[in-house]
Amino acid sequence: MAHVILSVESVRRTKLSAILRALHEDGPQSRSQLGTRLAMSRSMVADLVADLGARGLVREDTPDPSGMPGRPSPVVQLAADSIAVLAAEVAVDSLAVALVGLGGQMRSVARIPHNPGRLRAEETVGDLTLLANELLARAPRGCVVAGVGVAFYGVVRRSDGFVHYAHNLGWRGVPLGLLLQQSLGMAAPVTVANDADLGALAEHTRGAGRGADDMIYLASEIGIGGGIIANGRPLAGTAGAAGEVGHIPVNSNGMRCYCGAIGCWETEAGETALLRHAGRECGPPCHDCVAEVLADAARGEPIARAAVETIGHWLGVGLALLVNIFNPERIVLGGFFSDLYASVEAIVREQVQARAFLPARDLVSIVPATLGADTALLGAAELAFEPILADPTRVPSRKGIPATRWEPGAVSAPTSRPW
Amino acid sequence: MAHVILSVESVRRTKLSAILRALHEDGPQSRSQLGTRLAMSRSMVADLVADLGARGLVREDTPDPSGMPGRPSPVVQLAADSIAVLAAEVAVDSLAVALVGLGGQMRSVARIPHNPGRLRAEETVGDLTLLANELLARAPRGCVVAGVGVAFYGVVRRSDGFVHYAHNLGWRGVPLGLLLQQSLGMAAPVTVANDADLGALAEHTRGAGRGADDMIYLASEIGIGGGIIANGRPLAGTAGAAGEVGHIPVNSNGMRCYCGAIGCWETEAGETALLRHAGRECGPPCHDCVAEVLADAARGEPIARAAVETIGHWLGVGLALLVNIFNPERIVLGGFFSDLYASVEAIVREQVQARAFLPARDLVSIVPATLGADTALLGAAELAFEPILADPTRVPSRKGIPATRWEPGAVSAPTSRPW
Repeated sequence: MAHVILSVESVRRTKLSAILRALHEDGPQSRSQLGTRLAMSRSMVADLVADLGARGLVREDTPDPSGMPGRPSPVVQLAADSIAVLAAEVAVDSLAVALVGLGGQMRSVARIPHNPGRLRAEETVGDLTLLANELLARAPRGCVVAGVGVAFYGVVRRSDGFVHYAHNLGWRGVPLGLLLQQSLGMAAPVTVANDADLGALAEHTRGAGRGADDMIYLASEIGIGGGIIANGRPLAGTAGAAGEVGHIPVNSNGMRCYCGAIGCWETEAGETALLRHAGRECGPPCHDCVAEVLADAARGEPIARAAVETIGHWLGVGLALLVNIFNPERIVLGGFFSDLYASVEAIVREQVQARAFLPARDLVSIVPATLGADTALLGAAELAFEPILADPTRVPSRKGIPATRWEPGAVSAPTSRPW
Repeated sequence: MAHVILSVESVRRTKLSAILRALHEDGPQSRSQLGTRLAMSRSMVADLVADLGARGLVREDTPDPSGMPGRPSPVVQLAADSIAVLAAEVAVDSLAVALVGLGGQMRSVARIPHNPGRLRAEETVGDLTLLANELLARAPRGCVVAGVGVAFYGVVRRSDGFVHYAHNLGWRGVPLGLLLQQSLGMAAPVTVANDADLGALAEHTRGAGRGADDMIYLASEIGIGGGIIANGRPLAGTAGAAGEVGHIPVNSNGMRCYCGAIGCWETEAGETALLRHAGRECGPPCHDCVAEVLADAARGEPIARAAVETIGHWLGVGLALLVNIFNPERIVLGGFFSDLYASVEAIVREQVQARAFLPARDLVSIVPATLGADTALLGAAELAFEPILADPTRVPSRKGIPATRWEPGAVSAPTSRPW
């Protein structure tokens, strides 16, 4: 049980954090809206907003007073052109880097494909560094990169970004966080987390999981990964490795999984299974082949349709167990499940009804993810923003407030153009 | 994402809460120890302790000054004779009620057996009321009962104690919280929760789960239930129904479960399975028969030994999945698993090693529960204390601080004896 320690400074930090987070998650708001929402007085909001402004985090606009009674309340918005993060993604078949401004807007993104299972760690780090430098060269002058977040498709230790295991990349024991920190040569900290955990963070902050304090996000490609939000906070486990739901034993007559067991969830409901049932094995599953099967099924092609329904069945079987274990308010389906779900909703719900218990099975809503292909990147950005959102005083005030812990990676960009 | 709202009053409540919780969880401490631990100044601790004292929650003793340099710091301890809760347990084969003082010490307890599957809701409520009144009649004069917590062996809605489902009791749709509130006739609130969730709370606060912010408690009798602590907080799910882990499919060649599936965890590793493998079915499994099998196995009786090892095998298979999903720091085995574990530890670890992934499988420690047969009752007491621990100002000051929300069930006991 954690004991809460409060000092005058920490109370102020908490209030600054509440305002910055409100703007980051919900966009521009008037001072009076912020005061009402956060139960703060007019003068307190003004004081805190001025503090955030001095740190270059927010700016104020005077609204158009026409048609409004009384003195208009200034509108506060993020100074999204002064603070950004780099978000990177090491996926099974591509690498991507994005520059994301405070507020979560993606400013620029670069993605390159690679052959699944052929990616070496050194090349990955080199390619990510190349992409990052490309984006930074185009960033506005004076922009400060406050952190680097990386979404990784495998089991990773949160504390230092050490990759324990990534079956679909063929990696084992790679100090990815350290390698990337060295290669980027920036002072901004590099943080690495599992792609499904970051998908959960992104969908919870800005997507289909908004407002659901108990939610599960499922990432699905070749494998199935889970990102869990419990009590409104990410469930990371003791080493950041929670959410390995891909090996729920769903089908005792199923295929042997690489893990040694029979009929694991990802062996029965992942992309490989879909292509196998549709008779379209294409080596390492590619997004194009998967999309083709889904399109054919939607057109009513019988074999594709049957394959999709089989996946829906096993998807429902696994979900039922998660419903019993977590009693979630919402399950957000990412990856190819988000495209598949509309056509198998009845089949999935039937399995959940048959196998999960009351009241959990009646209370859960199952919905497709809404952030699309950039979910993991947006989650990586949230990861990188978190230290500043939790404590805005990490960013030094330009009016002389000392900055003891601030060592950002300053960016000197050759071009300066408005975002 | 929850936004933190802080007022002067809420900051003070948080500080009072931190002191009361520290004493409740760790016993008497000097003012200076409290100050160091909670990062509070000498004068702040003195002020807050005086406030708690005025509410009758703590008292101070002057320590023996001999042999100590400087002015001795007064020792603060709970006034455990002035505030208590009633803790009740509706188990598969017994009912119990205990009077538990602030600080978690059980003052008195009464338990009566019943026939599994024969217990009707009305009788249960009547029997619990009888037991409660027996204990209250022996409580010290002036003792205030601040709440009633109930541990229930089934799926229960946390908000109002409505029982959705309890297979082993044969209950479905019983408004237990409401019935008990009416029958007890006390103003103190009645809160009902699942026994495994409360076992987790108790073991986390005072038992084998202390200090582990990511832990799983397993309750095991006929069924297997899970209580989960994530990020240091109970994982309840959206309706308090999380932790239904008993139906993890572990054995595709196993027995049919009452839920309709084959080879569920509780069907393969529960008490019924142990007795079946040992050739000692006794109708509804009883603790005596289970204890006999465990004793025979310990003596080396081959059939009992083989039965115990089979349970150990399936226990390990189910645990491996939980390790992958939660990446827990610790798993605490309650119920008959706590007696069984020492003799099957190697078998359990072998399955976890074979089926769970790195790093989770190497980081988890698996330990037996330490609070024994009273685990669920102690957890029910924690549940009932929680509102006061979270906000000690719920208890009115005797020095004129207004008490707006305090409606305790006052107890006028015929006898007054020191606890």
